[in-house]
Amino acid sequence: MIDFDVVIRNGTVATASDVFAADVGIAGGKVVALGTGLALGRKEIDATGRLVLPGGVDSHCHIEEPAVGQVHNADTFASGTASAAAGGTTTVISFSQQVKGEGITQQLADYHIKAEQALIDYSFHIVISDPSPEVMAALPALIEQGHRSIKIFLTYDSVVLDDEQTLNVLALARQEGALVTVHAENHSAIKFLTNALEKAGLTLPKHHAWAKPMVVEREACHRVIALAELLDVPIQIFHVSGAEAAEEIRRAQNRGLKIFGETCPQYLMLTAEDLNRPNFEGAKFLCSPAPRTRADQEALWDYIRTGVLGIVSSDHAPNRFDDVHGKKVRGTDAPFSAIPNGVPGLATRLPILFSEGVGKGRIDLQTFVAITSTNPAKLFGIHPQKGTIAIGADADIAIWDPNKTVTIRNELLHHQVDYTVYEGVEVTGWPEITLSRGKVVVENGEIRGKPGDGRFLARGPYDAIKPLGRHVTPFDPVSGTLIDN
Amino acid sequence: MIDFDVVIRNGTVATASDVFAADVGIAGGKVVALGTGLALGRKEIDATGRLVLPGGVDSHCHIEEPAVGQVHNADTFASGTASAAAGGTTTVISFSQQVKGEGITQQLADYHIKAEQALIDYSFHIVISDPSPEVMAALPALIEQGHRSIKIFLTYDSVVLDDEQTLNVLALARQEGALVTVHAENHSAIKFLTNALEKAGLTLPKHHAWAKPMVVEREACHRVIALAELLDVPIQIFHVSGAEAAEEIRRAQNRGLKIFGETCPQYLMLTAEDLNRPNFEGAKFLCSPAPRTRADQEALWDYIRTGVLGIVSSDHAPNRFDDVHGKKVRGTDAPFSAIPNGVPGLATRLPILFSEGVGKGRIDLQTFVAITSTNPAKLFGIHPQKGTIAIGADADIAIWDPNKTVTIRNELLHHQVDYTVYEGVEVTGWPEITLSRGKVVVENGEIRGKPGDGRFLARGPYDAIKPLGRHVTPFDPVSGTLIDN
Amino acid sequence: MIDFDVVIRNGTVATASDVFAADVGIAGGKVVALGTGLALGRKEIDATGRLVLPGGVDSHCHIEEPAVGQVHNADTFASGTASAAAGGTTTVISFSQQVKGEGITQQLADYHIKAEQALIDYSFHIVISDPSPEVMAALPALIEQGHRSIKIFLTYDSVVLDDEQTLNVLALARQEGALVTVHAENHSAIKFLTNALEKAGLTLPKHHAWAKPMVVEREACHRVIALAELLDVPIQIFHVSGAEAAEEIRRAQNRGLKIFGETCPQYLMLTAEDLNRPNFEGAKFLCSPAPRTRADQEALWDYIRTGVLGIVSSDHAPNRFDDVHGKKVRGTDAPFSAIPNGVPGLATRLPILFSEGVGKGRIDLQTFVAITSTNPAKLFGIHPQKGTIAIGADADIAIWDPNKTVTIRNELLHHQVDYTVYEGVEVTGWPEITLSRGKVVVENGEIRGKPGDGRFLARGPYDAIKPLGRHVTPFDPVSGTLIDN
Amino acid sequence: MIDFDVVIRNGTVATASDVFAADVGIAGGKVVALGTGLALGRKEIDATGRLVLPGGVDSHCHIEEPAVGQVHNADTFASGTASAAAGGTTTVISFSQQVKGEGITQQLADYHIKAEQALIDYSFHIVISDPSPEVMAALPALIEQGHRSIKIFLTYDSVVLDDEQTLNVLALARQEGALVTVHAENHSAIKFLTNALEKAGLTLPKHHAWAKPMVVEREACHRVIALAELLDVPIQIFHVSGAEAAEEIRRAQNRGLKIFGETCPQYLMLTAEDLNRPNFEGAKFLCSPAPRTRADQEALWDYIRTGVLGIVSSDHAPNRFDDVHGKKVRGTDAPFSAIPNGVPGLATRLPILFSEGVGKGRIDLQTFVAITSTNPAKLFGIHPQKGTIAIGADADIAIWDPNKTVTIRNELLHHQVDYTVYEGVEVTGWPEITLSRGKVVVENGEIRGKPGDGRFLARGPYDAIKPLGRHVTPFDPVSGTLIDN
Repeated sequence: MIDFDVVIRNGTVATASDVFAADVGIAGGKVVALGTGLALGRKEIDATGRLVLPGGVDSHCHIEEPAVGQVHNADTFASGTASAAAGGTTTVISFSQQVKGEGITQQLADYHIKAEQALIDYSFHIVISDPSPEVMAALPALIEQGHRSIKIFLTYDSVVLDDEQTLNVLALARQEGALVTVHAENHSAIKFLTNALEKAGLTLPKHHAWAKPMVVEREACHRVIALAELLDVPIQIFHVSGAEAAEEIRRAQNRGLKIFGETCPQYLMLTAEDLNRPNFEGAKFLCSPAPRTRADQEALWDYIRTGVLGIVSSDHAPNRFDDVHGKKVRGTDAPFSAIPNGVPGLATRLPILFSEGVGKGRIDLQTFVAITSTNPAKLFGIHPQKGTIAIGADADIAIWDPNKTVTIRNELLHHQVDYTVYEGVEVTGWPEITLSRGKVVVENGEIRGKPGDGRFLARGPYDAIKPLGRHVTPFDPVSGTLIDN
Repeated sequence: MIDFDVVIRNGTVATASDVFAADVGIAGGKVVALGTGLALGRKEIDATGRLVLPGGVDSHCHIEEPAVGQVHNADTFASGTASAAAGGTTTVISFSQQVKGEGITQQLADYHIKAEQALIDYSFHIVISDPSPEVMAALPALIEQGHRSIKIFLTYDSVVLDDEQTLNVLALARQEGALVTVHAENHSAIKFLTNALEKAGLTLPKHHAWAKPMVVEREACHRVIALAELLDVPIQIFHVSGAEAAEEIRRAQNRGLKIFGETCPQYLMLTAEDLNRPNFEGAKFLCSPAPRTRADQEALWDYIRTGVLGIVSSDHAPNRFDDVHGKKVRGTDAPFSAIPNGVPGLATRLPILFSEGVGKGRIDLQTFVAITSTNPAKLFGIHPQKGTIAIGADADIAIWDPNKTVTIRNELLHHQVDYTVYEGVEVTGWPEITLSRGKVVVENGEIRGKPGDGRFLARGPYDAIKPLGRHVTPFDPVSGTLIDN
Repeated sequence: MIDFDVVIRNGTVATASDVFAADVGIAGGKVVALGTGLALGRKEIDATGRLVLPGGVDSHCHIEEPAVGQVHNADTFASGTASAAAGGTTTVISFSQQVKGEGITQQLADYHIKAEQALIDYSFHIVISDPSPEVMAALPALIEQGHRSIKIFLTYDSVVLDDEQTLNVLALARQEGALVTVHAENHSAIKFLTNALEKAGLTLPKHHAWAKPMVVEREACHRVIALAELLDVPIQIFHVSGAEAAEEIRRAQNRGLKIFGETCPQYLMLTAEDLNRPNFEGAKFLCSPAPRTRADQEALWDYIRTGVLGIVSSDHAPNRFDDVHGKKVRGTDAPFSAIPNGVPGLATRLPILFSEGVGKGRIDLQTFVAITSTNPAKLFGIHPQKGTIAIGADADIAIWDPNKTVTIRNELLHHQVDYTVYEGVEVTGWPEITLSRGKVVVENGEIRGKPGDGRFLARGPYDAIKPLGRHVTPFDPVSGTLIDN
Repeated sequence: MIDFDVVIRNGTVATASDVFAADVGIAGGKVVALGTGLALGRKEIDATGRLVLPGGVDSHCHIEEPAVGQVHNADTFASGTASAAAGGTTTVISFSQQVKGEGITQQLADYHIKAEQALIDYSFHIVISDPSPEVMAALPALIEQGHRSIKIFLTYDSVVLDDEQTLNVLALARQEGALVTVHAENHSAIKFLTNALEKAGLTLPKHHAWAKPMVVEREACHRVIALAELLDVPIQIFHVSGAEAAEEIRRAQNRGLKIFGETCPQYLMLTAEDLNRPNFEGAKFLCSPAPRTRADQEALWDYIRTGVLGIVSSDHAPNRFDDVHGKKVRGTDAPFSAIPNGVPGLATRLPILFSEGVGKGRIDLQTFVAITSTNPAKLFGIHPQKGTIAIGADADIAIWDPNKTVTIRNELLHHQVDYTVYEGVEVTGWPEITLSRGKVVVENGEIRGKPGDGRFLARGPYDAIKPLGRHVTPFDPVSGTLIDN
C-alpha cells in the first residue's frame, strides 16, 4: 500500500475521454491512485463540487527570449510560469530562439539556465532562423537531448526561412525525430502590402490586419503542407486565425496526412475591429496572424469540434503596453510595423476557453481537456507524463470551481505585462488550486510555488512524429531509398 | 477502504485518451480503484504483459429479431452475446423491430423477454418501419423508459420510410430526446436497378453490388443529413461503406452539424470482388450496403483517423450459409435479391480492428478504444457506465494479449452462424478474458457467463442527442417557435 | 446573288463567341449574308450605334397553362409572346402540363391550338405529373413529334414525382431522346415546414421563404443529380436560387456529368426581404424557390461566369396581383401557401440581365448572348435555327440601343399582368426592334406582329441529350446491357 | 459590293459558338462576307465536305529563343511557323526571353528581327527572369508597344522568380495592362528531389517525373493564385498537367477570380510511363511539368469541358533527339536533369485535339475552336482580329477534312525536330489548306507561304487583363488607394 503525499478528495476528475467522481492519490509527485475512499494523505485537498483537471499544457508561449527584433521580455521564467500556473497551466513549451547568423547550442544552454527559474515544468522548441551547415550539424545532438520540436517561421526578416531551408529542416526533423511547427504567413506578400500601406500613409494599428490578410496565411499553410507532404514529414501549423487556413489543414488531413493545427484564444475572441480601438489601444490587440472576423471565430470553433484544430495554445507574448519596453517603444505614432507583435495569454487561456467553450456549450469538458492539455502533451511527446490524470502521470493538476464567476482584471494574472486583451471580460469557471508534480503552486490566487521548482522535460522519440510511410513517387527523398509496393 | 472483488494486476490499461500501467480494483461490479500495488482482491487476475481495455460496445447488431422478410435468426441472445463476449465485447445494442402495420410496445416487451437470456448487458434501438399515429403516440413512453435511439431505414420494402415519415420521426426524436440512426440507401434506385438486373438475367451474388452502387448510398446520406439539418436533429448514419458517403458526412460536420458516422469491419476488409467467389460462396459476403473497393477501404481508414467516422460496429447479421434457414434458403440459384443480407461479426469485430488498425499502425490504441467502445457508449448514452475504464464505470473489461496470433476459424466464434467472412485470416492480438460487471464471461475461449447475467441498459437523456440550436431560418419547425438572434 | 428581304445595316453583331461590325442580310426569314456593304434590301433597318443580337430564347415560361391548383393565366399566347418580343425575346418554350390522373396527348393537342396565337416561335416542355403506364406509352410518339423535353417537379401536391417515378421518366427520356428538366425542391420538407409555420400562425408572404429554405433545394438537387448519374441521363435543374444548390451542380459537372443549371433574373435581383414588403406587396415577389440573400446573388453571378449556370430564363408566371384571379385570389389574409407562386418576367429578362450583367461589367456581351439565347437554344435542340446570328439561322434578331436608359414601368411590358417586380428599376440598354424570322414584331415599343405569326418548333434528337456512356457499375440499367471496358 | 480576293465555297464554318454552312468571302486579307451564293472570287476554294475553321492560335510555343541553359533551337521562325501552319495554326505567340542580369529591350528588338522570317502572324510574351529596377522601368514602354503578356517562371535556376519578384511583376502588369502567365512548379522542391535522386543514382529519364511530382505543381499554382488574388491581378497558369493543379485553378475561379488555365496535348496523351521507354527514347517525352497518369488525362478532359482549362497550346519546344544539339547533347548517360526539356508540337496540336476531342466525342466542334483558337485569341488580346471567322476578322483559316485519316509521321510536320512524340499515332481529321490573311500558306502538305509573310501583332489593352475590383482588404495595394464600399 502506498502512502499518499496528497489526496484530492471528492472531486470530479476529467480526462480527454472521461468524467468521473474519484479521489486522486498522489505520491512522489505522481498520480498513484484513483478511487473512492482513498486512505488519508499527508495533505488532503477537498475538491467537493470541484473539477479535477489535468494541468494545462501550453505548447506555444514566448518567455524570456532574447530580443530578436522584437521586445517581448516583460516576463521571466519566474513570472511567466507563475502566471501560467495561476491560470491552471502546469507545463509550458517556450522557444529557444536562434539569432540569425549565430549558433544554437550555446543559445540553448543559456536558455536552460534562464528556465531554471521556472515554477512549473517546461520544455523548449528550438527556433531555427538560419539552417546553416553548422546549425544543421548541431541539431541532432540537441534533439537527442530531448528538444524534439523545431519551430520555423515563414515570415519576419529576422527569422524567415525560404522553401529550400524549410525542406532541409523538414528532412532533418524526420531523420532525427523531431516535430516541425510552423508560423505560416507569406513573408514577401506581407512586405509588399506593408510597403504599399506605408507609402499610402496607412500605418495605424488597424492597418496591421490589412498588411497580413487571410490569404497570406492560407498561402503559407498550403505551401508548407505541400512541402511536408513531399517529404512525408508530420508538421504542426501554429495559431490558425481563420477559416481559409484551417480549411487547407482539413484538406490535408482528409488526404490522410499528419498535418496538425493549432489556434489561440485571441482568434476565438478578438476581431480585426479590436485593432481599431482609440488612443493607440488597438496596439494592445496587435498580433500575428491578425485577428479576423466573427464568422472566422465561429468557423474556428467548428474546426475545433471536428478535430481539425486539436490544440489551443496561448502564444503568450509578454509585451507591455504603456512602456518604452512594450507596444509603445516607438511611441503612439509608430507605424504598425514597428509595434511589437503578440498578446499576453498564459493565465487567461484556460479560463477563457472553459467559459466560452464548455460554459457556452460549444465543446464538452473532455474536449476542453483534450485541446488544452492532452493533445499538446501528445503532440509534443510528453504524454502520458503530462496531459492527463492517470496512474503514473505527473500530478500536474488544476482544481477548478466550474461555477465561479470572475471578471478578468490584469492584476489577477501574475504576469509582468501591464494589460490583458480580456480586461473586464466575465468568465465562469476558474482554477482555484494548481499542483505541479503534487505540490501546490497556486492556491486561490496566491503563488505558492518557487522559482526553481520546475524541471526541464527532455523528450524522447514518440508516435506523432513518425512519418506515414506514404510517398508521392516510388522514391523517399529523405531516406534516399526506393519504395517497393 | 474498499474490499476488492477482483483485482486485475500489472496490466496496461487503455482508455480513449490514455495508456498507463495500473492495477484495476473492482467491487460491486464497478471499477473502484486504479493504482499500483492495490490490496489483494478476492479474485486476482494477472495481466502482466496484457492490455486491459474497456469491453467493446457494439452499437449495431441484429440478434433474435423477429423475421421481417429476412432470416437472420441463427443467434439467440444467449449465443449472440456469448459470441460478442468471446470477441471482447461487453455491451450490445440490438434492434426491436416494428413489423409494418403493427405496434411497437408489445413487440418491445417481447423483445425484452428474449433479451433476458443475454450474458452481457444490452440495450435496444427501436426500429420504426411505420410511424403511424399510434406508433408515434406510443414512442414517448418507450423513450422515457430508456430506449433512446430509433433506427430508420431508407430502403427495404418492409421497413422503408419516405421523407415525410422520416421528418416526423426526426422531429419526435428531438422532442422526446432520442437519437435517430439511419440505414441510408435510396430505395427506389435500388429497386430500379434490381429490376433492370433481373430483367437482364444478372442475378448472381456479385450483382448485388451492382444493384446498390455507392451513389445510392451517397444520395440517401445527403438527403437524410439535409432533413436533419432542417430540423436541427443529431443523427447517426450507419455502416458507411465508402468514400462518397463518408464525404457527405464530413461536409455536414464541417458545417458544424451533429452528424455522426459509423462503419463496420466488413467495409474495411471486403470488396465487391468477394461477392464473386465461386460456388455461391459470394453469398456469404453479401451485405448492405455492398462492400466497395480497396480505395474505399483506405479512404475509410482516413475518415476514421480524422474522426469523421467515430464508430466501428459489427452490424452482426446471424444468417447461416449452408442451410435452408440461411443464405441458401432459396437455393444457390436464388437471385441476389432473395439472399438474406448481412454477415456475422460480433466476435471478430475487435480482433480484426485491433490487428488491422493498431497492429498495422493505422490507428493508435486509444483510437481503437474510442471507435469500438467509448464513442458508441457516448453516442448512445451509456457512458460513463460503459465504454471506459474509470472510477465508477461498470467493470466491463477485456484483457488482451496484444501479441497472440490467431488464425480465425468459425469454431472460435461461439455464434450459431456456420461461417465467418474472415475464415483463415490471421490476426495478432486477441481478447483472453472478458469481464462483465466484474464477472468473467469468457476466459481463454471458454464461455463462463450464463444466460441471464446481462441486464438491460435503460438510457436517460444525454449530450449527444441535444440539438445545436442552429436554424436555417428564424423559425424552429420542431418547437414551432421563433428564433431571436 | 440573293435578294434581301431585309438588311440590318451598320450595326454591331454579337454571338456567343464574337462581336463584329456587319450588315445582316435576310431572305426567306433567314440570315443569308453577313458582311459589309451588302446590297440594298427590300427593307432597310439602320442599326448605326446599335447592337444586333440573336433574339432571346426563353426556355422556361408559363403561358396559358390550364390552371393546376394555381392561377397563372393572365397571359395568353398572344399577350405573352408580345411581351417576350417587347423584351427582345423571339422564342419561348412553355409547358404543356399534365393534370394528374389525366393523359397527355389530348392536352398537348389542345395546347398546340392555344399556341397558334403566338406572335413568335415556340416549343413545349411536356410536364409529367403522373407517369402512369398510359402516359409513358404515349410519350415516345410525342417526343418523336418534336417535344424533346420533359419537365418534372419534385414538389407541389399536384405534380410532385417520387424517386421511382423520376427514375422511370429519366430512363424513358434517355431511351427516347428527350431532356428532363427539374423543379428541385424537397416536397415533404416544404410540407413539414409549411404545416409547422401555419400551426404557429406564421403565414405572411415572408414566411414563404421560411417554408422552403435553401436546404430543401440543395437536397432535391443532389438527389435528382444522383438519380440521373445512376442512369447516365443528362438533366437540367431549373431556377437555381442560391449558392448551395449551384454548388451541387458544380460538383456534378466536375465529376464529368451532364448536369445543366439555370437561374432567373429574380434570383439575381430579389432577396427574401422583398417578400416582407408592406400591404401584402410582398406577395408580388413570392416565387419558388424563394429569393435568397445578397450573398447568394453574388454567388450566382460567379456561377454564371464559370459556366456552372449556363442559362438565365424568366420562369414567367403571369399571376396578376390586385385581382381575384391573381395573388389576391384568396384575399390579403391568405396564408402564403395559398398565394399563387411566381413572378412575371418575359419582357424584363433581357433588359435586366443586359443592364446588371453587361452594363455593370459582370459578364461580357458574348456571355449575355450565350446565357439568354445560344445556350438555351443548344440545350433544347433548336440551335442553330435559333440562338445565334449565323448564315442559315432564322432571322430572329433584337436590335438594342446599348445606351438607352429606361425606367421599368409595367405599362412598357405588354403582358396582361398588373405589376412587375422591377417597377421603377432603371436599366441601361433596351431592345428597340425585334424581328422574328425577318419580320418586325416589335418596334420602339409598338407591337407589329400578329397572333398566328409564330410557329411550333418541332425538335429532333440533338447532342445535349446524348448520354455520356459512363456507368457507375459494369451494367447500364437503362439499356439493360453489360458494359465492357 | 465588294470584290472578293478569295471565296471559300460550300464549306461548313465553325466558330466557338456556331456551326453553319456558308461561303466565306475574303478581301484585303479579311473576312468580309459570310453567306450563300457569294459572287465569284478571284480565287475560289472548294470546301465541299470540309470544315472551315479559324486558324489555330498557339499562345505558348518556343521558337528561336536564345539558349538559356537549354537547347531548343532546332526551329527558326521560318520552320516553326511553317510547321504551325501545316497543322492548321495561323498565329503563334512565342517568347522573348530575358537572360538573367541582362536587359529586355535590345533582346526584344533582336527577337523582332528573327521573327520577321515568320510565315504567319505572331506576337510575343516577354519572359522576365530578373525584374531589376532597370527591367521594370523598361517594361511599360514595351507593353505599350503591344507586348501585353509577361511570362514568369517559378522554377529553373536561370529564370526562377521568388515571391517578392513575382508580386512586383504582377503589380506592374496590372498597372500597365499586361497579362502575366506562369510556369508554376516549386523550384526548391524540385531541386531538393533532384539532388536526392541524383545522390541515390536515380537519374534515368523516368526519374524526371519523380523529381517534379504533381504536388510541386499544385503548390506553385496555389501560391501564385494567392499572390494574384492579393493584388487583384488576372493571371494564366501554363501547361496544367493533372487534376490537383487544375483543381486549385477551379477553386480560384469559383471564388470569382480571373485565374485562367491552360493545358497541352502532351498531358492529354502521354503518361509518366512514356519516360521509361527503352534506349533513352524516354528522353523524347521529357517535358515540364512531367506527364502524369491516365486518370489525370481523363480529369483534364473534364476540366476542359467545364471551362476550367480554357486553352490547349502546344508548348512546342524544338529540341532534337538524336543530335548533339538535342536531347542527346550530353549523351545517353546524361542524368535527366541535363536533358533538354520539352517536346515539339506546333504541327500536331490541332490534329491530335480534333481526333481525340471531337472525333472521340469528348468535346464538340465549337469547343475545339474555342480552346485552340478563340480563347487564346481573347486571353491574349488579339480577338476579334484572330481566333474566329467573323466579318472583319483576319482571314486566318484552316480548311479541314474531318474524315481524313492520317498516321502521324515526323516528316509530315515540317519542323526541324527529328521526332514527334506522336509518331505512328493515327488521327482522323486533318487540315488540308491553311490561309493566313487570305493567302494560302499550306496546301495539301506543301508549304506555299514565304518567310516574311507573317506580321507582328501589337496588342492594345483588352478585357481579360482588367482587374476585378475585388480586394481582400479595404485597400488596393497596387494603386495604393482606399476602397470604399
